[in-house]
Amino acid sequence: MTNILRTFASDNYAGVLPEIMSALVKETQSKSHARAYGHDDVTKAARLAIKQQFTSASDASTPGVFFVFNGTGANVLSILACTHSYHAVICADISHIITDESSSPETVTGVRLISIPTNENGKIMIERIEEKLDCLGDMHAAQPRMISIAQPTEYGTVYTLDELKQISALAKKYNLYFHMDGARLFNAVSSLNCTLRDITTGVGVDILSLGGTKAGMMYGEAVVVFNQSILEADGGILKFRHKQVMQLASKQRFIAVQFLALLENNLWKKSSEHSNAMAQALKKRLESIPLKDNKPQIRITKPVETGAIFLEIPQQWYEPLSTIFPFYMWRKKNCEVRLMCSFDTTEDDIEQFMKKIDELIESNA
Amino acid sequence: MTNILRTFASDNYAGVLPEIMSALVKETQSKSHARAYGHDDVTKAARLAIKQQFTSASDASTPGVFFVFNGTGANVLSILACTHSYHAVICADISHIITDESSSPETVTGVRLISIPTNENGKIMIERIEEKLDCLGDMHAAQPRMISIAQPTEYGTVYTLDELKQISALAKKYNLYFHMDGARLFNAVSSLNCTLRDITTGVGVDILSLGGTKAGMMYGEAVVVFNQSILEADGGILKFRHKQVMQLASKQRFIAVQFLALLENNLWKKSSEHSNAMAQALKKRLESIPLKDNKPQIRITKPVETGAIFLEIPQQWYEPLSTIFPFYMWRKKNCEVRLMCSFDTTEDDIEQFMKKIDELIESNA
Amino acid sequence: MTNILRTFASDNYAGVLPEIMSALVKETQSKSHARAYGHDDVTKAARLAIKQQFTSASDASTPGVFFVFNGTGANVLSILACTHSYHAVICADISHIITDESSSPETVTGVRLISIPTNENGKIMIERIEEKLDCLGDMHAAQPRMISIAQPTEYGTVYTLDELKQISALAKKYNLYFHMDGARLFNAVSSLNCTLRDITTGVGVDILSLGGTKAGMMYGEAVVVFNQSILEADGGILKFRHKQVMQLASKQRFIAVQFLALLENNLWKKSSEHSNAMAQALKKRLESIPLKDNKPQIRITKPVETGAIFLEIPQQWYEPLSTIFPFYMWRKKNCEVRLMCSFDTTEDDIEQFMKKIDELIESNA
Amino acid sequence: MTNILRTFASDNYAGVLPEIMSALVKETQSKSHARAYGHDDVTKAARLAIKQQFTSASDASTPGVFFVFNGTGANVLSILACTHSYHAVICADISHIITDESSSPETVTGVRLISIPTNENGKIMIERIEEKLDCLGDMHAAQPRMISIAQPTEYGTVYTLDELKQISALAKKYNLYFHMDGARLFNAVSSLNCTLRDITTGVGVDILSLGGTKAGMMYGEAVVVFNQSILEADGGILKFRHKQVMQLASKQRFIAVQFLALLENNLWKKSSEHSNAMAQALKKRLESIPLKDNKPQIRITKPVETGAIFLEIPQQWYEPLSTIFPFYMWRKKNCEVRLMCSFDTTEDDIEQFMKKIDELIESNA
Repeated sequence: MTNILRTFASDNYAGVLPEIMSALVKETQSKSHARAYGHDDVTKAARLAIKQQFTSASDASTPGVFFVFNGTGANVLSILACTHSYHAVICADISHIITDESSSPETVTGVRLISIPTNENGKIMIERIEEKLDCLGDMHAAQPRMISIAQPTEYGTVYTLDELKQISALAKKYNLYFHMDGARLFNAVSSLNCTLRDITTGVGVDILSLGGTKAGMMYGEAVVVFNQSILEADGGILKFRHKQVMQLASKQRFIAVQFLALLENNLWKKSSEHSNAMAQALKKRLESIPLKDNKPQIRITKPVETGAIFLEIPQQWYEPLSTIFPFYMWRKKNCEVRLMCSFDTTEDDIEQFMKKIDELIESNA
Repeated sequence: MTNILRTFASDNYAGVLPEIMSALVKETQSKSHARAYGHDDVTKAARLAIKQQFTSASDASTPGVFFVFNGTGANVLSILACTHSYHAVICADISHIITDESSSPETVTGVRLISIPTNENGKIMIERIEEKLDCLGDMHAAQPRMISIAQPTEYGTVYTLDELKQISALAKKYNLYFHMDGARLFNAVSSLNCTLRDITTGVGVDILSLGGTKAGMMYGEAVVVFNQSILEADGGILKFRHKQVMQLASKQRFIAVQFLALLENNLWKKSSEHSNAMAQALKKRLESIPLKDNKPQIRITKPVETGAIFLEIPQQWYEPLSTIFPFYMWRKKNCEVRLMCSFDTTEDDIEQFMKKIDELIESNA
Repeated sequence: MTNILRTFASDNYAGVLPEIMSALVKETQSKSHARAYGHDDVTKAARLAIKQQFTSASDASTPGVFFVFNGTGANVLSILACTHSYHAVICADISHIITDESSSPETVTGVRLISIPTNENGKIMIERIEEKLDCLGDMHAAQPRMISIAQPTEYGTVYTLDELKQISALAKKYNLYFHMDGARLFNAVSSLNCTLRDITTGVGVDILSLGGTKAGMMYGEAVVVFNQSILEADGGILKFRHKQVMQLASKQRFIAVQFLALLENNLWKKSSEHSNAMAQALKKRLESIPLKDNKPQIRITKPVETGAIFLEIPQQWYEPLSTIFPFYMWRKKNCEVRLMCSFDTTEDDIEQFMKKIDELIESNA
Repeated sequence: MTNILRTFASDNYAGVLPEIMSALVKETQSKSHARAYGHDDVTKAARLAIKQQFTSASDASTPGVFFVFNGTGANVLSILACTHSYHAVICADISHIITDESSSPETVTGVRLISIPTNENGKIMIERIEEKLDCLGDMHAAQPRMISIAQPTEYGTVYTLDELKQISALAKKYNLYFHMDGARLFNAVSSLNCTLRDITTGVGVDILSLGGTKAGMMYGEAVVVFNQSILEADGGILKFRHKQVMQLASKQRFIAVQFLALLENNLWKKSSEHSNAMAQALKKRLESIPLKDNKPQIRITKPVETGAIFLEIPQQWYEPLSTIFPFYMWRKKNCEVRLMCSFDTTEDDIEQFMKKIDELIESNA
């Protein structure tokens, strides 16, 4: 536990933003008790902060904000909020919800996930969605009820506001809900240089999984419900769903206080701009790797739009590099790897990483 | 957020033990990344600490330790670990698993909960369990597969080691698993003045929900599996169940480090002895409330064996008392309330509480 | 397959009413194809027949009629029609839905079953229901949404219309749905000498599992939905639920044509009056069994109100009697057995059965 | 109900084979009771008949045979038999299990369905399966546990024995179960001119959904389990699963007796050869439709290997033809329709159908 490990593996290998840790410490030092299960003032304040930043001032209705423990919990609660068990959710074939959340969506909600191919940038092929909607009204088929997209995508690419509007329009046309999995939403917002409002209520998102953990929190995410019909369905089912889905924290204020810190003084913005910028800096360094035998030694395979860089590297680099600076293998056959910059990635991390590459190049010469 | 609130409501109204907060701060200040999803050294160390304190040195097999977010998650994962969906779980009618966890057990695992009446001390009526086992082998009936008891009970009472052995023997006789919901286990151990080993492996517990949150952690519980056949079923299903049940934290080290702190230097013992002692002190003070018209003004209704005191109070006390020192109404018709002492309950809390009672008595005179 | 077996085991040991068999034969001999999945004329006619007999002429709204394969299917579809997965269903502790349908309700719908004790006649203790409703609105508890009772009960006893109205009023008071499991409904109607209307829409039943198999059909039951709000929920979810619950027959006309036959010419009435009368005749004969040592040799333990007789018999009778005329052991410790008369029970069956008893008495003398 | 309707819609628009109807009548005329829920002699005999025809004489182990009501029930029970809820089932994207069974598989079993593209003949692209197996062992991903294919496919095409062996080998390599959805299995067997053994145990099928309804039964299918490890898992879970999945008929003998009739005297063979032959006859007639303006007026789009013919027809034919002889539109945009020949399709049906086409051609001239 004494050794320092630095990685480009995932922003969940990183720790906690200092400002967030301070907020946690301050909250515990107060010696105050607080009502459990979200009936406390910190939770109330965090809900208000989310309302202020995600909805317009003229919007009288409060969005429903439900703090949860983790991303899978947020996505499953989002599905539960919008569906009956005979429904289906449309998502991209590489999306986290279908590749990295076990069978939780199906087991807990009973619905089917329908996967749609993605284009080379990891975005759902919008033109392929409609063919899955022919079955609407047919009792023999699981009924599509929601389109879920991840912003940014699993490849770190970002849907433009126009693309989001296009998906939203399609959803509205077929009476589907539009869900955004925003586990790394702040990175997308910084990438688009827009507001939290623009990227959600501005494009017609009905329900959002808002990520905290990967943004520098210790733990905690939120489900934010913008569409009042979801909130009001059957007299308000969401508070029951929140508990049922095993994501209602008793000491909820400690999730809320982290979100408060993240939203205060634009910490989310500074932090996500930092990881995005680190990715650009690393990309630039990677692109400067000299040719070998007149051929590039590495190839960046996806547009770098947030903190993630996907690239092919020489097979023989993988082990020595990833031992020192762990990162994920994405596709073995072409040795495509993912380097993820985090809120705490430093220039020194990049230096050390590139230095190791230089050594590999040299030793190989 | 500036006002100090003190309560006798629940140990989840309390904050975080300072030693635990220090451990969290220290872990984040290391600046180190750590492998996500439990593949880190802190998690490894916490697993070892649990092994050392819950199993005997001669026990070669490591128990399975799965850190989770909250108590409902721990209980549901315990059920998932031991059952198929056509099974049933036998539990006490006042147990948390059936009164306070929504329909999560049924929805997520598919099994039935079968409730057994409790005696006046809130303990499951062991002699009433067997009548529910007639249906074993009958395909028409949900098949009992597990007995789940809470230690301490919802009334804060504690099963003796002999009672636990009796339940364990019954479970073994019918090939059922024995699950212990130990959301406040440390209080029970201190009450019995036994070891963590005595109360679990010593009496044949197969699988344990080990509470952290109510013991002074910010969040986090653990499922501890002692029975190797559960761990090894179908080639080891538990790592998949852990993820599937939406309770696998990405930054798991921050749960583990809290457990490490709790288990180090007997923090759990000091802390649970403190809350138990506070309950005894409060009880003594309550018992000293003078008679009125030759009759006691309050009546303690359950044995006080851990941090909880159940008592009947005059109806007219409830509102003024609970406004200043929130606590739970348990049964309206006889104004039976619960006062819960926590790891952070102080003598001053008791003083202030009794002072308020004195005022109420006086004003009423 | 050549030996004739006669039993008092269950009306599902019996075969098929000749009138129903004729209807099936006639339908197949037509050589006509018919639209699958209920879009055929026979299904339409059977729905109309049910409407006419269960609702009043002035009732403009058609009840929803969904033909299913078996009783468990009918009950589970009824639950699915009325609940979300965080809900709970209140039922009697001896009801079929909780004793004989595996964990199907929980697994398929996610809800909890809450069992209420029954009185000595097997009827739900209405006064014990309300204590389970304290938790309404509390997100921590599975939320009661439906009261389900079996008419007749598992003991063959029959709720009076007044008792049904009392349950219905309680359900309405708490905004719960009132479900009737009528696997043997026709026997109850004949017992009360009322109409199908009186016993269902007349007392405020919202949704009914209408039994066909035990009434003399080869297979098939129906879910009949009287409450329009169930039918119209979320734009009409029931056709999807019908398919989802695996109870939508492709050749549905063959279920429908059996119901048509049962409802035509009051076949259901003649048939259920017959089994009820056979039970009375058998009861009379059993009561005439002479005393032995001044004590009755058998004791009828429940009121005989439909086709079932519950009685204690001498332990030594059980094997020889049940080998020739199979019937169910109900409670071993007092050798309480159930004799079930069916639509095809004959006076000769009774004669042969009593003759065997006479032999047992004699041989024992 | 008096008009005769003839169709090429589906074999579930057809009625019941006369031999099967006779068996049903005979069984009911016996006046005999029979033990419910499959403990009767007819069920026993039907199980034996299936054993004899599907397994080799030297195979000592009895396959498990579970009679169910419908095809969705058979498929869902097959999944339940082989999986935990964190598993996944691999199937073809056009398979019935994923297109026509609502979300029943997910809701009842909790697993995920993973769809694999099909080639132009509707067969699963075997070479695309392996890429879905990379995630085996990764707790974040739903774990593939079964490959399910339909034989014949939804296009009526038939996997060769070699293709089946290839799938089976792949399944074995990755420790997956091999499930065959044989809703119309007899047609495939007749098409391949092989035995029931060849097509199942001969190629390593572990578990089979054996269709009865589309083969001319009134209702009823069977799950046949060849792999003993499925039967013996956890001490034999299948009898409980059978009940739990709401597919255990009380009067089960009436399903069994139909299967007995189907298997006796090769009725299944005559009957499936007939529908296959009718499809060939119809195909021949369709191919003889004269060119118009030097271009074919219709185009047969899939190989005709069982009872189904897929073809494109002129848009203006669809309504007049399908009004008289209902059949299914398959793909609107190219007016591709499906003509399904059934066990009761007659040469006169074909004559009348072609006559109508002739009229359409003429009137159009």
